[in-house]
Amino acid sequence: MAKTSIIFRLELDHKKVTFADVAATLSKVGGDITSIDVIRPGHDTSTRDITVDLPDKNEAAAVEALRNLDGITVINVSDRTFLVHLGGKITIQPTLPIKNREDLSKVYTPGVAKVCSAIAENQNKAYSLTIKRNTVAVVTDGTAVLGLGDIGPHAAAPVMEGKAMLFKQLAGVDAFPICLDTKDTEELIRTIKAMSPIFGGINLEDISSPRCFEIETRLADELDIPVFHDDQHGTAVVVIAGLLNALKVVGKRMENIRVVVNGIGAAGVSICKMLLQAGVKHLVPVDREGAIVRGGSYDHHPMWQWLADQPQVEAEAGDLKTVIAGADVFIGVSRGRLLNEEDVKKMAPGSIVFAMANPEPEITPEEALPHVAVFATGRSDYPNQINNVLVFPGLFRGALDCRARRINEPMKMAAARAIASVVSGSELNADYIIPSIFNEQVVANVRKAVIDAAILTNVARRTPPEFR
Amino acid sequence: MAKTSIIFRLELDHKKVTFADVAATLSKVGGDITSIDVIRPGHDTSTRDITVDLPDKNEAAAVEALRNLDGITVINVSDRTFLVHLGGKITIQPTLPIKNREDLSKVYTPGVAKVCSAIAENQNKAYSLTIKRNTVAVVTDGTAVLGLGDIGPHAAAPVMEGKAMLFKQLAGVDAFPICLDTKDTEELIRTIKAMSPIFGGINLEDISSPRCFEIETRLADELDIPVFHDDQHGTAVVVIAGLLNALKVVGKRMENIRVVVNGIGAAGVSICKMLLQAGVKHLVPVDREGAIVRGGSYDHHPMWQWLADQPQVEAEAGDLKTVIAGADVFIGVSRGRLLNEEDVKKMAPGSIVFAMANPEPEITPEEALPHVAVFATGRSDYPNQINNVLVFPGLFRGALDCRARRINEPMKMAAARAIASVVSGSELNADYIIPSIFNEQVVANVRKAVIDAAILTNVARRTPPEFR
Repeated sequence: MAKTSIIFRLELDHKKVTFADVAATLSKVGGDITSIDVIRPGHDTSTRDITVDLPDKNEAAAVEALRNLDGITVINVSDRTFLVHLGGKITIQPTLPIKNREDLSKVYTPGVAKVCSAIAENQNKAYSLTIKRNTVAVVTDGTAVLGLGDIGPHAAAPVMEGKAMLFKQLAGVDAFPICLDTKDTEELIRTIKAMSPIFGGINLEDISSPRCFEIETRLADELDIPVFHDDQHGTAVVVIAGLLNALKVVGKRMENIRVVVNGIGAAGVSICKMLLQAGVKHLVPVDREGAIVRGGSYDHHPMWQWLADQPQVEAEAGDLKTVIAGADVFIGVSRGRLLNEEDVKKMAPGSIVFAMANPEPEITPEEALPHVAVFATGRSDYPNQINNVLVFPGLFRGALDCRARRINEPMKMAAARAIASVVSGSELNADYIIPSIFNEQVVANVRKAVIDAAILTNVARRTPPEFR
Repeated sequence: MAKTSIIFRLELDHKKVTFADVAATLSKVGGDITSIDVIRPGHDTSTRDITVDLPDKNEAAAVEALRNLDGITVINVSDRTFLVHLGGKITIQPTLPIKNREDLSKVYTPGVAKVCSAIAENQNKAYSLTIKRNTVAVVTDGTAVLGLGDIGPHAAAPVMEGKAMLFKQLAGVDAFPICLDTKDTEELIRTIKAMSPIFGGINLEDISSPRCFEIETRLADELDIPVFHDDQHGTAVVVIAGLLNALKVVGKRMENIRVVVNGIGAAGVSICKMLLQAGVKHLVPVDREGAIVRGGSYDHHPMWQWLADQPQVEAEAGDLKTVIAGADVFIGVSRGRLLNEEDVKKMAPGSIVFAMANPEPEITPEEALPHVAVFATGRSDYPNQINNVLVFPGLFRGALDCRARRINEPMKMAAARAIASVVSGSELNADYIIPSIFNEQVVANVRKAVIDAAILTNVARRTPPEFR
C-alpha cells in the first residue's frame, strides 16, 4: 500500500494527554512514527512535530482521530511531499559573480555589445556565446498530465520542474519549464516556434492526443533544433529497450512475435511505429473500440489510419480479450485492470507482458506473474520498471552535444539499444530486463549511441572531439 | 580610452624572435602586458598565452603587427570579454538532489500528482508550490538592443542573460531569458500571454518604439502579474531619482523648473510622464523634428499626441538648440554629441544636464562641466551614472514579495524616491546624486518602498510578514 510521510505539528496539554496516547492513536490508523521534534518545550503544554508514515488513504482519519483526543491541538498538517515542492524545485544561478565594475562591463554593457554583434553577424555563434548549447525547454499545455488529464498549465508546472531537475542531475542539461496557456494546435506551434531561439532543444510533455502528433511533427519540420514529445517517444524507446532484452530471456526474435499494443494514444502510436521499425511483422493495435485492423477506415484519427495501412498490422477484428489469445507480447499503455489471469493464460508460451497503465497496471503482478515469462510495469515497486527517465536525459545530452538538427528514428532506436545493452548477458534475467534510472552507465551509453546515429544519418552539425 | 583585455596564444621560434620583441611590438600599439602563461615550453619553440590590455580600436593592428614579426605564429586571439560569455552566463540548478527512489517519488511521479492536483483545485497555490513566486521572464524580440538596433532574438540573448545574472545577484530573483522570433505586435502579446503561467513577472527588454507602448500596456491589462518594460520605466525611475537629488543640490523645486527632454522614444515618453507625475509644470519634449508642442497634431505617434494634449507641455515650437535656452534641466536619451558648450551656456543658472545617449553622451563632460551645476551620463567612467540596474532588481523583488498584480505609477515613484534616499543629506553633492549599483541599500530600500506603495494602492495580493 502506498504510504505518505506526514508531519503533524501538535500542541499537547500534559495534564490531559500523554505522548503514548498520541502514538497509540496514530498506530490505530496504520501510522508509523519516524521522528519527533520538540518545537516549543514547556511545563504545562509543549509543541511537537511528529513525522508519521501513513497509508495514503488514512490521512484524514488520522487528523480526525488526533483532533478527537482531549488535550491535543492540531496546529498544522504538512505532507512531506508538498514540503519538497515549496517555492519550486529549480533555481537559476549566474555562472560567475559580478564582483566589481570591470566584471559588470564584461557581462553587461558596454562589453556585451561586442558579443551581441558577433552573434548578429553569425547566428551559429549563439551556440558558443549563449546558454543555447546546453538548454532545453520542457514545454506543456497541461492537457494530459500524468493520469490527471487536462489540469492546465499552472498545475502542470510541478511535473515540468521535476523533469528539469532530472535533466540536470542525470545529464547536466539545463532545462526550463514552459507551461503554455493555450490548447489551440496552431497557437501552440506558433508560440513554441517564437520562443525557440534561446533553446537548443524542445522537450514536449503531457500534450494530449491527437493534437500532440501534429504539434510535434510540424515543430520538428519547421525548427532546426531537436523536438521530442516524451510521452510518445520516451515511452516507446524504453519499451523497445525492455522488449529487446525480454526477447533474449524467452529466446524469441522480433520477426516472429505477435504483439498486442493496447491504448493507441500518444505513447501507443509511437510504440507501434518503433515496433515496426524494429522488425515486428505481426502487430495488433487495440483501442477502446477493439483492434485497429489492416484495411480498416479511421477517418477521425489519422494515426490509426496510418496503422491500418501497414502490411504488418493484422486484418482480424476483435476486442482485447479475443486478440490477446496466442499473442507473444502484450504492451499496455491504457487503463488499470483491463486484463485478468484467464486473459494472460491464453497467450503463447513464453509470454511477455508490459502493463504500463498508471497508477494501476492493466493486470496486477500477483495475477500475471504465475502465467507469464517476463512481466514489467511503469511502477517502481515491482521489478522491471519501464520508465522514460531512462531515455530523455541521455538522448538530449547526445543531441545537444552534436547539435543535432532533429531527433530521427535511427537515433531513437540507437537509444533503445543502448539502454538494453546496459544489462549485460550475465546479468539478464526475467526480473532484470531494464537498468535502474540511477545506473550511471545509462546516460553515457545513450549519449554515445545517439551521437553516433546522428553523425551517421547526417543530422549532426558538430562532431564532439571524442567522435573525430 | 576604452580598453579590452585580449589573450594572444603565440608560438615563438626562439632562433628568430625573443619575448622582448613581442613586448616591444605590443607596446607600440598601446598594449600593456598583464600576464604570461607558458602553455607548451620547448627548446626551439614555445607556446604562450599573453594577456594584454589594449585600446579597443587597436586589436586588429596588434594582431597584424604580431603576424609581421618573423618567428611568431599567432595561434589564437581571445577577447576576454568573449571568454566570460562562453557557454552562456546562467545555469539551472535543482534546489535539492534526487538521491534515491524515495526522493524521486516525491519530486516526480507518483508523489508529484498530489501537488499538481492541489494547484488544479486552487491556482493560487502555484505561488507556493512552483517557481512562480520568485521567477521573472526577461523577454525581448531583439529589435532595440543597446545601441545596436534590430539585431534579432539570438544576438540579443547575451544581454538578457546578463540581466538574469543581475536579477539573481542583486535581488535573489530567478530570471530566465526569453528571446522571441517575431516582431508582430499582436503575436508578441499573444506569445507572452501564452507563456506567462510559470512566471511571477515579465520584464520586457529592448523592444523598439512605438510597438513597445502597446505591447506593455496590453500585457499589463490582460495579465495579472507585473509587466515592466525596463527601457521605458527603468530609465525613467532612475532619472527621476537622480533629478530629485540634483534639484536639492541646486536648490530648485519640481514645480518651478523648465525641463527639456530630448529623444521621445521608449525611455523619453516614460521620463516625460514621470516628470509630470512628479509635479513638473514646464515640459519641452523634443525629437528630431523639434519640440513637440501643446495643441500640435501628431497622428503618426499616439504617445506624442498624448504629450501634446498635456497642459504642462509648452506651446512654442523650435529646435533643440532654441528651446534649450533658459532651461533648468536637460535630459537626453537621444544621440551622441548633439549639444556643445554654447548650448549649455544658454541654460538657466544652476543647470542640470543628464546626457544619457549611449555610448557617446549628447555632450561630453569636458565640454559641459565648466558650465553646468550637475552633470550625469549613462556611463560608468564619469560620476553620476544614471543606470537602470538601480531599479529593476529591487522593483521586481518588491513586486514578487507582495504578489503585486501590476506595477503602477505610485510604485515607480516610490522606487525613484527610495533610490534617491540612499544618498544621505550629508553625502549629497554635485558629483554624488545617485548611489552606486553595488550599494546594497538600494535593493532593500526599493523593495520596501515598492511593497508599501503596492499595499497602499491595493495591487498587493500578499502582505509580507514585516509589513503586517
